[in-house]
Amino acid sequence: MNRPLHISFLGNTYVHGFYHGRIEDCFQRYPQVRHEVCFDFYSFLFIISGRGEVRIGNRSYETGDHLLFLIPPSFPFSAGFKEPAEGHFIFFCKDFYATDFNPIPLSYLFSFFSVYLKEKNIPYLKITPEIADVPVVMQLIEEEYQKKEKAGAPVIRSYVHVIVQRLLNFLTSHYPQHESFCLINELASLVEKYYVEERQVNFYAKQLGMNERKLNQFCLRVFGQNMKQLILERVMMQARRMLEQTDLTVAEIAYKLNFSDNSNFNKIFKKYTHITPLQYRHKHKPFLP
Amino acid sequence: MNRPLHISFLGNTYVHGFYHGRIEDCFQRYPQVRHEVCFDFYSFLFIISGRGEVRIGNRSYETGDHLLFLIPPSFPFSAGFKEPAEGHFIFFCKDFYATDFNPIPLSYLFSFFSVYLKEKNIPYLKITPEIADVPVVMQLIEEEYQKKEKAGAPVIRSYVHVIVQRLLNFLTSHYPQHESFCLINELASLVEKYYVEERQVNFYAKQLGMNERKLNQFCLRVFGQNMKQLILERVMMQARRMLEQTDLTVAEIAYKLNFSDNSNFNKIFKKYTHITPLQYRHKHKPFLP
Repeated sequence: MNRPLHISFLGNTYVHGFYHGRIEDCFQRYPQVRHEVCFDFYSFLFIISGRGEVRIGNRSYETGDHLLFLIPPSFPFSAGFKEPAEGHFIFFCKDFYATDFNPIPLSYLFSFFSVYLKEKNIPYLKITPEIADVPVVMQLIEEEYQKKEKAGAPVIRSYVHVIVQRLLNFLTSHYPQHESFCLINELASLVEKYYVEERQVNFYAKQLGMNERKLNQFCLRVFGQNMKQLILERVMMQARRMLEQTDLTVAEIAYKLNFSDNSNFNKIFKKYTHITPLQYRHKHKPFLP
Repeated sequence: MNRPLHISFLGNTYVHGFYHGRIEDCFQRYPQVRHEVCFDFYSFLFIISGRGEVRIGNRSYETGDHLLFLIPPSFPFSAGFKEPAEGHFIFFCKDFYATDFNPIPLSYLFSFFSVYLKEKNIPYLKITPEIADVPVVMQLIEEEYQKKEKAGAPVIRSYVHVIVQRLLNFLTSHYPQHESFCLINELASLVEKYYVEERQVNFYAKQLGMNERKLNQFCLRVFGQNMKQLILERVMMQARRMLEQTDLTVAEIAYKLNFSDNSNFNKIFKKYTHITPLQYRHKHKPFLP
């Protein structure tokens, strides 16, 4: 089997880090989606109508009308329809979302969805009256995206946040026994507040009244990452943001983000992003307003 | 002239700190709105249709169809219609919004709107195709609010955030020369990050590369508050949140918020909120989920 194709760069769209398209447009622009792809961004696929097959991970599912699929990053994925299908594809990078919102509940939504609902072998949500606002919001996103204005990014982002909140609200009210949602929120605020100063897992464990091992287990189960990775991911996200949005030198960014030295920062950045900080800056800056 | 009536407590609504009503329902519930009121929360009044008069501050304006009024806290305000009017009233406390979002851009939106547009003697926005999503989002807010579920608060909040983003985006793209929006965003992130540890205006001024006097002038002009008040308001908001959402004692909250002692905290809290921390807790906790 071929390795699934990664499509890692949402830079050449109207809004950096975000893409919206009707299903047919998306197949034209990203024909790879018919075969197996592996995105490193989050995807919503909302099928208004159209019979076909969606493969997520190594299982395939018959699709139907009014179904919403959530595809987390790094899940091999493909979709195909027997007839022209109607619906929306929405792709967005974690960085796009995290510019204004805490990304931890977002990770939680997608991992909750993929783990829990896959257990039941139904990896989609049927759009019921209770979440009937989701398609309306997707329509509003489409209208905003079609204005083709970079300045629309904060508005689109806040619409995406509405969808995330709506689905979290729906899932936690229907499966309240699942994960301690309060703990996730508390963890999210702590990381947001202290990620620059505090990289020790122990610090966060103490604040949450848990021991380190339990916290790591919790993170692995809920986010598929241990706590150290979660903190470092937040730091790297901030590094990327500073590379994109400021004119600080790499050394200044390393200093502001509390790295012992420049080369240590470079090494870790490269490990996470596969390119150096300067390469990242050159690649992304042209796309920003 | 009588002092305008303050309606300070949005606790007895379906969602703590938030109210949505059609214009006629709102007049029934808050008949004072026909006379002069002075809210300590933010208000949107969107008139779909109906002729009448709206008074804001000490001026009155003829209303018409498809007009959106933004009424900042502490502005004397009244509204009256000659015939049954159609439209939405939305009220929300700063604390309601700030639970998930930085409140500084919100303050900016309302003060920008009230200062700038009042200069031109048009204290409303005409809903044009460019911001045609605002009424749609208000409709979605209404549907969510009518479910009468406290758990809907984060969803409603994210819809309110969409409106705030949309209007900020609209105003700053049409009046880009007005205020340095970047500076406001930078200031907002700094306050959010440091308000517990740093209460000195000088610290923030340095980070922004300004002197203290200039920063204070900027804040007074943009927010109607000096920088010291802005920081302290953020601290008090956090204090209220901790009183509502945790079981920490008042002394513990004072300590966590970096007050030298309990009585100092009590004094300042009372000055800002007009009641003691414990009275605040008893008044608000019953309304929360």
